[in-house]
Amino acid sequence: MSILVVGSVALDTIKTPFGKAEEALGGSATYFSASSIFFSPVQLVAVVGKDFPKKYIALFKKRGIDLQGLTIKEGKTFRWEGEYGWDFSNPKTIATHLNVFAEFNPKIPETYKNCEYVFLANVDPQIQAKVLDQITKPRLVACDTMNYWIENKREYLLKLLKRVDIFLLNESEAKELTQEANLVVAGKKIGKLGPKIIIIKKGEHGALLFSENRIFCAPAFLLESVYDPTGAGDTFAGGFMGYLSKCKKYNQAALRNAVIHGTIMATFAVEDFSLKRLYSITASDIDKRIKKFRELTSF
Amino acid sequence: MSILVVGSVALDTIKTPFGKAEEALGGSATYFSASSIFFSPVQLVAVVGKDFPKKYIALFKKRGIDLQGLTIKEGKTFRWEGEYGWDFSNPKTIATHLNVFAEFNPKIPETYKNCEYVFLANVDPQIQAKVLDQITKPRLVACDTMNYWIENKREYLLKLLKRVDIFLLNESEAKELTQEANLVVAGKKIGKLGPKIIIIKKGEHGALLFSENRIFCAPAFLLESVYDPTGAGDTFAGGFMGYLSKCKKYNQAALRNAVIHGTIMATFAVEDFSLKRLYSITASDIDKRIKKFRELTSF
Repeated sequence: MSILVVGSVALDTIKTPFGKAEEALGGSATYFSASSIFFSPVQLVAVVGKDFPKKYIALFKKRGIDLQGLTIKEGKTFRWEGEYGWDFSNPKTIATHLNVFAEFNPKIPETYKNCEYVFLANVDPQIQAKVLDQITKPRLVACDTMNYWIENKREYLLKLLKRVDIFLLNESEAKELTQEANLVVAGKKIGKLGPKIIIIKKGEHGALLFSENRIFCAPAFLLESVYDPTGAGDTFAGGFMGYLSKCKKYNQAALRNAVIHGTIMATFAVEDFSLKRLYSITASDIDKRIKKFRELTSF
Repeated sequence: MSILVVGSVALDTIKTPFGKAEEALGGSATYFSASSIFFSPVQLVAVVGKDFPKKYIALFKKRGIDLQGLTIKEGKTFRWEGEYGWDFSNPKTIATHLNVFAEFNPKIPETYKNCEYVFLANVDPQIQAKVLDQITKPRLVACDTMNYWIENKREYLLKLLKRVDIFLLNESEAKELTQEANLVVAGKKIGKLGPKIIIIKKGEHGALLFSENRIFCAPAFLLESVYDPTGAGDTFAGGFMGYLSKCKKYNQAALRNAVIHGTIMATFAVEDFSLKRLYSITASDIDKRIKKFRELTSF
């Protein structure tokens, strides 16, 4: 089953204690698609400028990502520049140039409109809603967000949440949205806002899944070398949605396994700058790491 | 198999966002023994002053803790005053009055000297070593420490580590001891210092166990209400050592289950001030929570 992803394709300049990457391929839709393509076909909707390097288009194509929904517009591609300290959480944003992404008004191609699995990456909730308006019969809709929208477009975000099945957000977003310090309480509160499945991502500390009045507490995979955490959340979402779309179910067992697949995909994302590692692994690398994860966490 | 614990018995005054407890029963040996007594007999070695309330002595006795090693000395009992913020990590110490604990020079009673399981709670590593000198045939020795000793008695701590089997420490202590930001690398480095079993406690984020070149990553139990995190680490150690002593093995399966038992005991410690909750639970409460933990984490 195809997954439609709507989000950003960007050029990232990233500094970490281990080095620097300049104008590297990035963006939420990029990380999501690189991850979910291992499990399911992906239709990408995003916008880039005329300056977007052809080599990156070729990379997308090589991975088999459907680019009918990628608009190439007069102007420059969205650029983000950030820096991470030793703890690898909360990067310092040095510069954001939205460029063509500032007027992102996604038009869903006719051939995409009947897709059943939808991931609305972190963009303005009004735009996320406009995307949903164009989908004829969505079966499973997931969305992400960020603190900026919680603070500045709360009303629209709350409206959107009534229309989505799955809400993925990180720890600080969950706390801010609910004004609640305890994540168990926060997760339950979010469940009352609409989504029947909630995932709170805790970065290096794993993730929590709330569904059917049950909670699943997934530990994080331990890595000896983290080089660049950019895109980990979207890569997680890609693995999660990809797995669900592949197994065509979303009962408790499927959801828990989807969280594990999301976690594992995210570990590959952070092992090198940009998408270097994600674009070099094979299905067998994923299987091996899932096996290792079971070994690491079973008791 | 009896466990010998050497540590502090104190009177704590604690403020958290949920309330305050004054001159409440506390101390590392207190929390450890309240936890391990569920699994194994406990022999406690500590010192208190003449002002130590008789009701607390009665509480120890009621729980079946062997108090032959508890010295009641002329002077005042060790007092600690601290305050926790909303994140419940790193309490602010408002006052520390060591009182009789300042000259703690534990004499191990003759009847304790042949004990096989020993827990050296967080005290000066020179004192921890002196305790070990008095034990005739220890089978499994565990110790804890704190940043202060890492900074001020590093040499003695390193000497001690060559004599212990199990080293329990928290995340920041592991990083400081090894000068290493990555916990996997830190755990492996500590393994080279002597202990064959290392547990890095990550507070609300669970614990890591390093043994036999393997790592076990235990998630934390999720609680909706945390009232007072004081003593969580010593309670964890009590459940961990108690379980090992009860099952008389320390292979991989036993060690992993011991970590789970430690985690579960710690959840009870933090659900109320001082030892209120720990002193009110039954073995059946522990079993139920372990079952719930499996449900929460299985995939």
